[in-house]
Amino acid sequence: MIDVHNRSEITSPAPNTAESARRRVVIVGGGFGGLACARALGGSDVDVVLIDRRNHNLFQPLLYQVATAALSPADISEPIRQSLARYRNIGVILGEVQDIDVEHQRVVLREGLPVSYDQLVLATGSVYNYFGHETWPSIAPGLKSNREARQIRERLLLTFEKAEITADAAKRKALLTNVIVGGGPTGVEMAGSIAELGQFLIKRDFRNLSRNEFRVLLLEASPDILNGFDVKLVRYARQRLEKMGVEVRTCSPVETMTPTSVVTRDETINTGCIVWGAGVKASPVAQWLGIEAGQGGRVPVEADLRVKAFSNIYVVGDAALLPDDNGKPLPALAQVAKQEGHYLGRMLRHPPTNAPAEPFRFRNRGATAVIGRNAAIFESGNWKLKGFPAWILWAIVHVYLLINFEKRMLVTVQWIWLYLTRQRGARVIDEYGA
Amino acid sequence: MIDVHNRSEITSPAPNTAESARRRVVIVGGGFGGLACARALGGSDVDVVLIDRRNHNLFQPLLYQVATAALSPADISEPIRQSLARYRNIGVILGEVQDIDVEHQRVVLREGLPVSYDQLVLATGSVYNYFGHETWPSIAPGLKSNREARQIRERLLLTFEKAEITADAAKRKALLTNVIVGGGPTGVEMAGSIAELGQFLIKRDFRNLSRNEFRVLLLEASPDILNGFDVKLVRYARQRLEKMGVEVRTCSPVETMTPTSVVTRDETINTGCIVWGAGVKASPVAQWLGIEAGQGGRVPVEADLRVKAFSNIYVVGDAALLPDDNGKPLPALAQVAKQEGHYLGRMLRHPPTNAPAEPFRFRNRGATAVIGRNAAIFESGNWKLKGFPAWILWAIVHVYLLINFEKRMLVTVQWIWLYLTRQRGARVIDEYGA
Repeated sequence: MIDVHNRSEITSPAPNTAESARRRVVIVGGGFGGLACARALGGSDVDVVLIDRRNHNLFQPLLYQVATAALSPADISEPIRQSLARYRNIGVILGEVQDIDVEHQRVVLREGLPVSYDQLVLATGSVYNYFGHETWPSIAPGLKSNREARQIRERLLLTFEKAEITADAAKRKALLTNVIVGGGPTGVEMAGSIAELGQFLIKRDFRNLSRNEFRVLLLEASPDILNGFDVKLVRYARQRLEKMGVEVRTCSPVETMTPTSVVTRDETINTGCIVWGAGVKASPVAQWLGIEAGQGGRVPVEADLRVKAFSNIYVVGDAALLPDDNGKPLPALAQVAKQEGHYLGRMLRHPPTNAPAEPFRFRNRGATAVIGRNAAIFESGNWKLKGFPAWILWAIVHVYLLINFEKRMLVTVQWIWLYLTRQRGARVIDEYGA
Repeated sequence: MIDVHNRSEITSPAPNTAESARRRVVIVGGGFGGLACARALGGSDVDVVLIDRRNHNLFQPLLYQVATAALSPADISEPIRQSLARYRNIGVILGEVQDIDVEHQRVVLREGLPVSYDQLVLATGSVYNYFGHETWPSIAPGLKSNREARQIRERLLLTFEKAEITADAAKRKALLTNVIVGGGPTGVEMAGSIAELGQFLIKRDFRNLSRNEFRVLLLEASPDILNGFDVKLVRYARQRLEKMGVEVRTCSPVETMTPTSVVTRDETINTGCIVWGAGVKASPVAQWLGIEAGQGGRVPVEADLRVKAFSNIYVVGDAALLPDDNGKPLPALAQVAKQEGHYLGRMLRHPPTNAPAEPFRFRNRGATAVIGRNAAIFESGNWKLKGFPAWILWAIVHVYLLINFEKRMLVTVQWIWLYLTRQRGARVIDEYGA
């Protein structure tokens, strides 16, 4: 067990230059929020320790393209150490947080290692909400990590392989029926990509499958998809999806599911692949802190992102519950997490004072969703865009936001190749049966 | 169960155009040999069915770069269906061969599906030979599939993460000690890459590790590494490896191993990561055919690659045992498999005759191995090359041989980035503990 008060063990530039007197900020989570916070603290005279159970930060907006074999995990992932390597005041720990000992001001890791903090930033994000159904996560994985994306990719590709050698027409039809639960941007993007992938594979790669056996269903519990977007854009998106062969079923909450079927109020759908994209809930931050969680398991925070009950604990990103000017909670979006993290990092550069901090203000950069080839929607304030222009804008923005020059090149090459040939280059199934 | 005599079930362009009369060639294995054979049969009036338990062919010469986080699996993999999509007379089955029913001329798949053949080509390649030690494969994975490469990558990267938070110096030293078993090209390439990766990570990404704690050992049972290469080149390779900090141990057969240690005649090495690259043996082809296997489990074949005991069964690649002009068996190399496959495919385009076939002749395109940055060896006949020129030649040849334009671009981008920044872009560890 390491006494992490002795910085030399964990985060000093070199083991022999410990400076125990310095203030230490511990950040839990290396997603958009945590990383932005760490970067904003980079080069300051504060010691920073970032803890994550992944070694990489993930560009989640493109994760659906990993799940649909357009990109590889590494194309949208960067080692957190690499992202922060140039800041010698920041150390990184790969570990899983088990609990927080607020009394002794330390984070307890599963590895048994306690990490002491002067100030604590919780940026643990959110997980998919299966509303208490314990079997559903394994039946219908959601898009949160590379592992899940690869799992979805493998299942998806296997349905075609199995269908190809299946004589039983009913079984083949079921194998070729894909169900996406949740009509948010992720669900829409998955539905569109799977439709394009399937059409292409059946036309080009498989000899015994016909396109009219192939189905993609998008199930949404509420009356419409893409909740929050302008109605005109939503109507356009829905029409495009249906033109691509996606069957959009609104007002269709899932009642139960098995690995081979999904049951809604109106029908039982036999399926070979189920993807979950319906609602998220915050990671167990509230539980760690022993306080009551707000809506969606999120932790209510002050205007400076501080948790009310504590003077030195902050929450950013999906895990934080902060009302905007209209009193509506800020959405669980990358741009919110990023701005909150940056704001907090800037603030924590300075020693704590009693003076009230400048409150956090969210600047909305707009919302976007891709439906498919040449089709996307983009909305920022009163500026609304759809179709090819929105799609190009989406592509440019996402390449621009990507991790580094190498990843931008890799993704651009693969997108151009995909656009010209419709070939999705990452159609890899690991050794079968192995 | 499908009667595959009715081609419409499996390989016809469309279910309604069965032509049962045509000769059918079944190829087992979609590696270099099987794929070359299928391609050579493309567009002929022969029905071809290719069976593999992977959905992709793998450019194995670069697999070590996946294991060392320089490339992603998809960069060196292509779906077999995609490779053969343009040949409408070829069908592909993702399945695992269980046995071959030579009497009824059919291949039996684990999926219970029998696939009938008129002529059978076995291109099942080879697996690593652990000389009967059952626990070793899981302790020391070899480089044969993307899954194993990813497994090695994850273990390798985790040793640094664990060492970073380990106070116990002995434990940290063991975690940072890597053992590669087998001094062939793969072993040398792995040793060199791991050395470069480790040096960089410790210098740049980790705060509590020092380079003198990091070790890479290359164990070879025979008196020297790179058996078969010119002695001068071998001496050069060995010097380069040692300059890079790799400890080359010849005459050091492994006597036993545990997940945390390797025991040779002279020493016990505590280690965090063991990679196996010592000798291969052919897949169970001989067993399937109920005949006696030759050296290394390979099946002895005639000059036309036919198995002596059968008139319509052929073996190509690593699984085939064919002597060269000097009576020495042709090595288990990609170029041998490729040439054999192509030769056989051309031959099988024509109906079987009693006239003796033109015997297969291997054209040696030379052998090469990479040691590291700017260092490789290349040998073709009397033409010997080492150092930077050999390295450049190696890079150009391998990019040229790659699957398609997209992959060439992707690999080139990543190699240039790696060369300029020393950053290995695929340092992804899946969710920890998950």
